[in-house]
Amino acid sequence: MARLAVGLIGLGRLGRVYARDLSTRIAQTRLAAVADTNAELARQVGAEFDVPRAYAAPDELLHDPAIDAVVIVSPTHTHRSLVMAALEAKKPTFCEKPPALLLAEAAAMAEAERRTGTFLQMGFMRRFDPGYAAAKTQIDDGRIGRPVVFKATSRDPFPPSLAYADPKSSGGIFIDMGIHDFDLARWFMGEVKSVQAVGGVLAHLELATVGDRDNAIAILTFADGRLGVVDLSRSGYYGYDITTELLGTEGTIRIGYLRETPMLVMTRNSVAHDTVPYFMERFERAYTLQLENFAENVLHGRPAPIAMRDGVEALRIGVAATRACDTGGCVDVHAIGAGPA
Amino acid sequence: MARLAVGLIGLGRLGRVYARDLSTRIAQTRLAAVADTNAELARQVGAEFDVPRAYAAPDELLHDPAIDAVVIVSPTHTHRSLVMAALEAKKPTFCEKPPALLLAEAAAMAEAERRTGTFLQMGFMRRFDPGYAAAKTQIDDGRIGRPVVFKATSRDPFPPSLAYADPKSSGGIFIDMGIHDFDLARWFMGEVKSVQAVGGVLAHLELATVGDRDNAIAILTFADGRLGVVDLSRSGYYGYDITTELLGTEGTIRIGYLRETPMLVMTRNSVAHDTVPYFMERFERAYTLQLENFAENVLHGRPAPIAMRDGVEALRIGVAATRACDTGGCVDVHAIGAGPA
Amino acid sequence: MARLAVGLIGLGRLGRVYARDLSTRIAQTRLAAVADTNAELARQVGAEFDVPRAYAAPDELLHDPAIDAVVIVSPTHTHRSLVMAALEAKKPTFCEKPPALLLAEAAAMAEAERRTGTFLQMGFMRRFDPGYAAAKTQIDDGRIGRPVVFKATSRDPFPPSLAYADPKSSGGIFIDMGIHDFDLARWFMGEVKSVQAVGGVLAHLELATVGDRDNAIAILTFADGRLGVVDLSRSGYYGYDITTELLGTEGTIRIGYLRETPMLVMTRNSVAHDTVPYFMERFERAYTLQLENFAENVLHGRPAPIAMRDGVEALRIGVAATRACDTGGCVDVHAIGAGPA
Amino acid sequence: MARLAVGLIGLGRLGRVYARDLSTRIAQTRLAAVADTNAELARQVGAEFDVPRAYAAPDELLHDPAIDAVVIVSPTHTHRSLVMAALEAKKPTFCEKPPALLLAEAAAMAEAERRTGTFLQMGFMRRFDPGYAAAKTQIDDGRIGRPVVFKATSRDPFPPSLAYADPKSSGGIFIDMGIHDFDLARWFMGEVKSVQAVGGVLAHLELATVGDRDNAIAILTFADGRLGVVDLSRSGYYGYDITTELLGTEGTIRIGYLRETPMLVMTRNSVAHDTVPYFMERFERAYTLQLENFAENVLHGRPAPIAMRDGVEALRIGVAATRACDTGGCVDVHAIGAGPA
Repeated sequence: MARLAVGLIGLGRLGRVYARDLSTRIAQTRLAAVADTNAELARQVGAEFDVPRAYAAPDELLHDPAIDAVVIVSPTHTHRSLVMAALEAKKPTFCEKPPALLLAEAAAMAEAERRTGTFLQMGFMRRFDPGYAAAKTQIDDGRIGRPVVFKATSRDPFPPSLAYADPKSSGGIFIDMGIHDFDLARWFMGEVKSVQAVGGVLAHLELATVGDRDNAIAILTFADGRLGVVDLSRSGYYGYDITTELLGTEGTIRIGYLRETPMLVMTRNSVAHDTVPYFMERFERAYTLQLENFAENVLHGRPAPIAMRDGVEALRIGVAATRACDTGGCVDVHAIGAGPA
Repeated sequence: MARLAVGLIGLGRLGRVYARDLSTRIAQTRLAAVADTNAELARQVGAEFDVPRAYAAPDELLHDPAIDAVVIVSPTHTHRSLVMAALEAKKPTFCEKPPALLLAEAAAMAEAERRTGTFLQMGFMRRFDPGYAAAKTQIDDGRIGRPVVFKATSRDPFPPSLAYADPKSSGGIFIDMGIHDFDLARWFMGEVKSVQAVGGVLAHLELATVGDRDNAIAILTFADGRLGVVDLSRSGYYGYDITTELLGTEGTIRIGYLRETPMLVMTRNSVAHDTVPYFMERFERAYTLQLENFAENVLHGRPAPIAMRDGVEALRIGVAATRACDTGGCVDVHAIGAGPA
Repeated sequence: MARLAVGLIGLGRLGRVYARDLSTRIAQTRLAAVADTNAELARQVGAEFDVPRAYAAPDELLHDPAIDAVVIVSPTHTHRSLVMAALEAKKPTFCEKPPALLLAEAAAMAEAERRTGTFLQMGFMRRFDPGYAAAKTQIDDGRIGRPVVFKATSRDPFPPSLAYADPKSSGGIFIDMGIHDFDLARWFMGEVKSVQAVGGVLAHLELATVGDRDNAIAILTFADGRLGVVDLSRSGYYGYDITTELLGTEGTIRIGYLRETPMLVMTRNSVAHDTVPYFMERFERAYTLQLENFAENVLHGRPAPIAMRDGVEALRIGVAATRACDTGGCVDVHAIGAGPA
Repeated sequence: MARLAVGLIGLGRLGRVYARDLSTRIAQTRLAAVADTNAELARQVGAEFDVPRAYAAPDELLHDPAIDAVVIVSPTHTHRSLVMAALEAKKPTFCEKPPALLLAEAAAMAEAERRTGTFLQMGFMRRFDPGYAAAKTQIDDGRIGRPVVFKATSRDPFPPSLAYADPKSSGGIFIDMGIHDFDLARWFMGEVKSVQAVGGVLAHLELATVGDRDNAIAILTFADGRLGVVDLSRSGYYGYDITTELLGTEGTIRIGYLRETPMLVMTRNSVAHDTVPYFMERFERAYTLQLENFAENVLHGRPAPIAMRDGVEALRIGVAATRACDTGGCVDVHAIGAGPA
């Protein structure tokens, strides 16, 4: 089978990783075009990976007949217009998380997906991590009975820049960091009914100037009464720590690890090891497997395993958690409308 | 220095462990009398440990001039009258947790402590566990900077009997199980301002018949805005799991372990170990150290490191969490009065 | 059943632990007499544990009709005469490891055991450690198939004093440290046919002055061709580390652990925990269980699970390993006679 | 800088991994030609990776002027003639381990390296594993003082085919498996003076028919008296387990791990995780980094960090260990001549 000719839009840090994966690591794809509004960057990355075409205008890529499918990893605020244009152009599309910061925008994309019938796959890469994938299989096989409590921890080893952390661009901690955990919550457990949350600026006081929080905790009640808790931190100084636990009626599954290098240093009264530096060290393979899955779905005409609706619903929980934290109340997730979040 | 002559009231499971500790494991004490309303049990335990006196009437023990100090580990509903009688009798007293199920009762004991000036020490044994004690030392030494998030998990491997779980005698999951974690929260972090909580009957459906929950999660806001979360489970099927984590501005400390026997069994594609069976396997040494500490405090005229006020405040958080879970709201801990909980 | 009246001979560090265990921790025993050639020490320990009789002459203890059984934990060079006198006095006897430094002495004790028919139990406490005991059960149950390779590591966190390390009193590293591992090798696998060994003074150069080694490795061939390896170190700076592994035809079992306090300290790029300080922290419970087992065997008329022959054979391997290391050759264990080692 | 045009000889399992790495994962290389005596295989692999030239005759590749450097991963018995031809053709060359099964052949290659002055790098990929590389850095930085004992364990989860295991093609367990460990021993500690060894057919009895062993242990004495031990097993049923330990005068470093997927499954009384399936899962990155290092050395005119002499010396220890195991004696490594092993 011929390789899928993929056009990649957005060449920031993650975009360049995707460029490498699409051009060299994924047997089912070739990188047929790249686009970035930074024309020089597009040219450079194109040259690095021998890409036939490098565009400064994403729209040109979307209408390039040599392109079979599109991967969008541009800044979040551009997702809506790019995704919608891609869907209209009938290009099977992959959209990086989060879908948008505003529920209305995400909802508009989901609506366009329905209207155009074009393939659209959301990017929640954790589902492709071998640990998470194995956990899902074990749970579906009944290994821990019925999961009744979902617990998730996400910690970044250092805070983002103020420009990045600004909730106007990041969505704030519950959306920026939490959306991965809220997606996992839905994947493992189903729909969330209500959220309560607390948060604060406790370690990186400068974050207060832009209105973000550095530590936050949300408790979830699922539609059927089961329970969840997500704690988020931008001050996991020791390293990048992503841990998830499913407590079931016959056992528990825990996913996550702290050690990067397989080495123990044992000195007087101490055994020590290093930690996972950051997300790319932890999830590099998940990112690759995610795009490989996208390519296979397109090539074989399979439905998207993660649809835009999943993006909408994970975002909705993030918006609800933010509101719960702001107000101190219990927020009904489904009362969060598609209006401005 | 002569050994402290201790009178022990209450000879249930934990009482008999205390009998053994006071008579054989603690160099500073001798077990001078036991009392239990079950006269035959008192006689048997007395004989087993060569105790000079065995009473069926605790009051007689309290007024026995040969007794230097009293350890009360009788059923919770008897704590108030026994503690108050002991204080009036001027016997330095140790009271097992929880102090009471009703805040008013605990408050009355604290008031009696003040009024009589008699030494009274609350039993929260986790503070004496070598892991928790080491963590406290490290944190006080600044090893992780300022702790900003408190996380605690307590899981029992199986549910209690319905008779035990009945909130009328246990106080419900937030008090019965959570009081240890709420005490740790105060010990490590300070006073709690407000609580939000969720809970349910998810694994042991029979608990619904008595009105208890088997899984519950509470999020805490401390008085100065720092954060905490406690998750409790009566369905930790794999084993007894008590884990606590302090996330600080320069590092994190985690206390807890899963493995009981130091043995790995490695078979095809699997490495496995056993788990901690239950609380006595996990905290046997903490229980002993706690009574040893009590004895030393009495012998050396030191103040109680855990006062009845600590019992009152931990109970107050448990009551607040229960109310928060019942109502779905955010409950101000200090608005919880000393009236019927 | 009445408690076994035990007489304890030898009140050094381990002797005092045994005094505590026999008088307070073991339900089946009472400490009826202590003896030490240091009369003042005997008096003090006797007073501490309310022991009826304290002797400066072990022989007097051995002939005290109030004594049901004898525990000998005096210096190694005294074992032979004390054990033989105890056997002649028809006192069931427990003898701490090693039985002797000279095979001829150990053999003489074994011969006296046969001749007198008096109960004699050797002290190899690791067999009573819950980890080792669980491993034995699993292996006997076929969990790893047939064990074919035995691996053992023993490391002390610091060297002994020169006086202690002197092979004239310690036997040298293969006997002093290795005898535990050689006993385990026999327990798990059966008789050893031949030994090859290397060793050196690599870390504590002062040990060369007395002729001991600080690091040594022995490879074992069992009688049926199966294999073993034991590595010993007096320079395990990080902590006390005792690890044993059985590699079987269907799996592997590993016994041992490094962490003492259940606490992880997670600071920038590092996760660290403490280590086991020394043998008493690691094996305290094994020591107690061992004496409890001795008492039960005597009380119930059961044969000794560890006989003097086991002491002889473990010592024989230690002697063979020492000779192999001295000569660089492969030493046939059974060619090691009972003459001077 | 232009990419290094690499010609790859040998397209077995590992050869195809190298084809992928050289063509897609290593920024400094392009795969300019492949060769395999199986012409169809050469054609297929060439097509898969868009390689300009595919040869059935390795010699043609060696004389192709478009080729800058050569990677040889063909069967061991072909190494000598191919390496020597490549050196004569002045192509910088990478040779997969083992260099040869006969010391004389390896010595001939080392001699050709000296004579021709052509760059030649031996493949011992473990040195490029992040764990081993980090350990080397830590040790060189003095983190554990001076390493005095080297310990290594290598276990395969299942035996090779009889055809593969036949010592005539594999060299036997001490060469086939042990050569990696012997190379590490030299890398971390220096030259080995003498070896003693034991081995047997204990688990896979069919291996006896070809004269290989499935379990073996070698003890090493280094030239300066320091010590080492290597245990090898073809019956590590639980998984692929490569563990190395350096015991130093101030601490210890341990490299290795057992868990593949970051998931714990916790069921009644059990916590379990999976294991590393086999060498490619464990060392995939090391293989890539090794070839990347080769390319950089060639491009930048750096000397080979692992020379043919390293191959010769590691092989010499393997030959000595085999002889020691065969004879039961202590074998002087440097007395092992370059004649037929």
